[in-house]
Amino acid sequence: MYITGIGKTKFGILRQGLPELCYEAMQKALKDANASIEDIEAIFVSNFLAGSAQSQLHINSLIASLLPGIDIPIIRIETACASSGAALHQAIISLSKYKNVMVLGAEKMSGVGMKEMTSCIAEAGDRMLDQKEGVIFPASYALIAQQHMLRYGTTVDDLALISLKAHKNANLNELAHFAYKTVTRDMINNSPIVSTPLRLFDCSPISDGAAALIISREKKDGRSIKILASALRTGTISLAQRKDITSFPAAKAAAEEAYAQAGMTPDKIDIAEVHDCFTIAELVAIEDLGFCALGESKGWIRQGKTSLTGQLPINTGGGLKANGHPIGATGASQVCEIVTQLRREAGARQVKKADIGLTHNVGGVGGTVAVHIFRRE
Amino acid sequence: MYITGIGKTKFGILRQGLPELCYEAMQKALKDANASIEDIEAIFVSNFLAGSAQSQLHINSLIASLLPGIDIPIIRIETACASSGAALHQAIISLSKYKNVMVLGAEKMSGVGMKEMTSCIAEAGDRMLDQKEGVIFPASYALIAQQHMLRYGTTVDDLALISLKAHKNANLNELAHFAYKTVTRDMINNSPIVSTPLRLFDCSPISDGAAALIISREKKDGRSIKILASALRTGTISLAQRKDITSFPAAKAAAEEAYAQAGMTPDKIDIAEVHDCFTIAELVAIEDLGFCALGESKGWIRQGKTSLTGQLPINTGGGLKANGHPIGATGASQVCEIVTQLRREAGARQVKKADIGLTHNVGGVGGTVAVHIFRRE
Repeated sequence: MYITGIGKTKFGILRQGLPELCYEAMQKALKDANASIEDIEAIFVSNFLAGSAQSQLHINSLIASLLPGIDIPIIRIETACASSGAALHQAIISLSKYKNVMVLGAEKMSGVGMKEMTSCIAEAGDRMLDQKEGVIFPASYALIAQQHMLRYGTTVDDLALISLKAHKNANLNELAHFAYKTVTRDMINNSPIVSTPLRLFDCSPISDGAAALIISREKKDGRSIKILASALRTGTISLAQRKDITSFPAAKAAAEEAYAQAGMTPDKIDIAEVHDCFTIAELVAIEDLGFCALGESKGWIRQGKTSLTGQLPINTGGGLKANGHPIGATGASQVCEIVTQLRREAGARQVKKADIGLTHNVGGVGGTVAVHIFRRE
Repeated sequence: MYITGIGKTKFGILRQGLPELCYEAMQKALKDANASIEDIEAIFVSNFLAGSAQSQLHINSLIASLLPGIDIPIIRIETACASSGAALHQAIISLSKYKNVMVLGAEKMSGVGMKEMTSCIAEAGDRMLDQKEGVIFPASYALIAQQHMLRYGTTVDDLALISLKAHKNANLNELAHFAYKTVTRDMINNSPIVSTPLRLFDCSPISDGAAALIISREKKDGRSIKILASALRTGTISLAQRKDITSFPAAKAAAEEAYAQAGMTPDKIDIAEVHDCFTIAELVAIEDLGFCALGESKGWIRQGKTSLTGQLPINTGGGLKANGHPIGATGASQVCEIVTQLRREAGARQVKKADIGLTHNVGGVGGTVAVHIFRRE
């Protein structure tokens, strides 16, 4: 099983609506694969909040309307911020039936008031335990950060380093939400507190964008990237239901399964895109994925191990923090970055050793986690 | 591939919330299959409007919270009113990976104001072409009915006969929304016009409910029902994008593919559950499924061919019209009825010859259509 095509729109506050974003990403992926829509046998669309924010459900049929004469199966998958990771997982399973399928992740988040958008995003949390108590996502991840600091000695400076790295990488990614934006330590340190200890620069932005992947049973050419593993796990929706909030059981289980499928240990991974919806989430991810022991991720960021020239470059495209986080598109966008790196097509942000890459896509506070592993052939 | 367990809650205006409905349906299906949740390797949850109506997305993780200690992959699928048909389709494909999976369809529709609920349902239509123009679903199906009448001579009496049959069957189905409710021709004829020519009794109700299916690679016992075909097709979202509105191209394509998979012609089907969200939709379905030629379905209902004792009993459980239409649960509920009939467990509404059954589940005005065929072994 291979990724034979990728397409990503610019991420950011964009003038386009959801259908236009979808169309652009689809066309880019088809062009990248040197394929036509007639080659695609099914489409797995992932979108999180078009119903709540734009009164538009049944997106799969909306996509069909963009493709005259095409009546293939198109379905929508939603698992909060892990929607396109879950869609990819299903797409891969469906290769038992199909030769070529598409994953299309898209989200239109701008154009909605900030208060309303905050409510929409909160729909990924439990209505009773989280929403009614005001435990929106910045608050949940702030609780995680507080616990992580208390238990492991992680500091706000560690979080700032993650933000700084994300913006440095995004600066080299023309499609990133914060492309060409120089961010300094001072800007991060002086940004407003969102939820203690998280500042504005610890939080991923509200982005529009779409990303598409073409998944094929057979290798197409030298640019095809092999899929070594696809694991999806689900856990409880609210932090209130967990004994320990500094690690996500679903992430650890998905990672373990993925490594088993790929027949490898975490140290074999060259690059990773992890779900840094908040800076603290990147540290939790590094630990959940087994790159280091619990509590030791702070050392990794302090020593620059995850920078572009480090031992294991993480979020080379800027991550959710600076590449952007159009929710339904995020998992597919992570794969676009890994594929670009494995193909040696990442230009100024190209990592030197990039043969095996991993993506880690999280819904909510670890309620859904998809982990995929890819290899250059 | 087999259906080895089914579970359905009562449909209607219920006191339970979404999680309770889900839990009940899951437990019923597990009990029916004589299985435990540990036997289930993945769950495909289908739900349409919990985000828009109850501010609750990420339902797959909400389900995980109901199942302590279980961290299997759970994903949510949404394709409007065809959500659980699409979930079943994916579940069947996933048997290439798993031995036993569950489809869980659920919807909580009551407790929301009628105007707000009408808006939520309209999210299955195009925001620009349908919603903004006021073309809500009763209006869309009224246009279809008008065209069908104009072209084929179908009458309001034909529609009334469908409603009458649905209520007659539901009267024998204790879990139906309108169980034990006697409906007469006079009640139908005197009910208020919703959208000409559709009256109240031509429209399926707002229902709460859930239905679960256990899908297995291997046959379990004599009550296991074989899955002969699973086809899903997608088409344009709005009637405004179609040349002909008296037939759904996606339904015809899905039906053709399903018959090909099953290696049979439409005349081999003994019983069918079709998507009668409005009475006219049952006539369109009978034609799209190839049970008769275009325009000839009126003869079928006039001659009683689709009644419990007819040549091809249709919607023996009461259909969407009288069994109820909790959107995300509807496709799974149709399968529950077919399985019950094929097992000879339908009691007072048991059909005499029931060896091969078909389900036809539609999203929007034919934007998504799932067709499945089952056989008693």
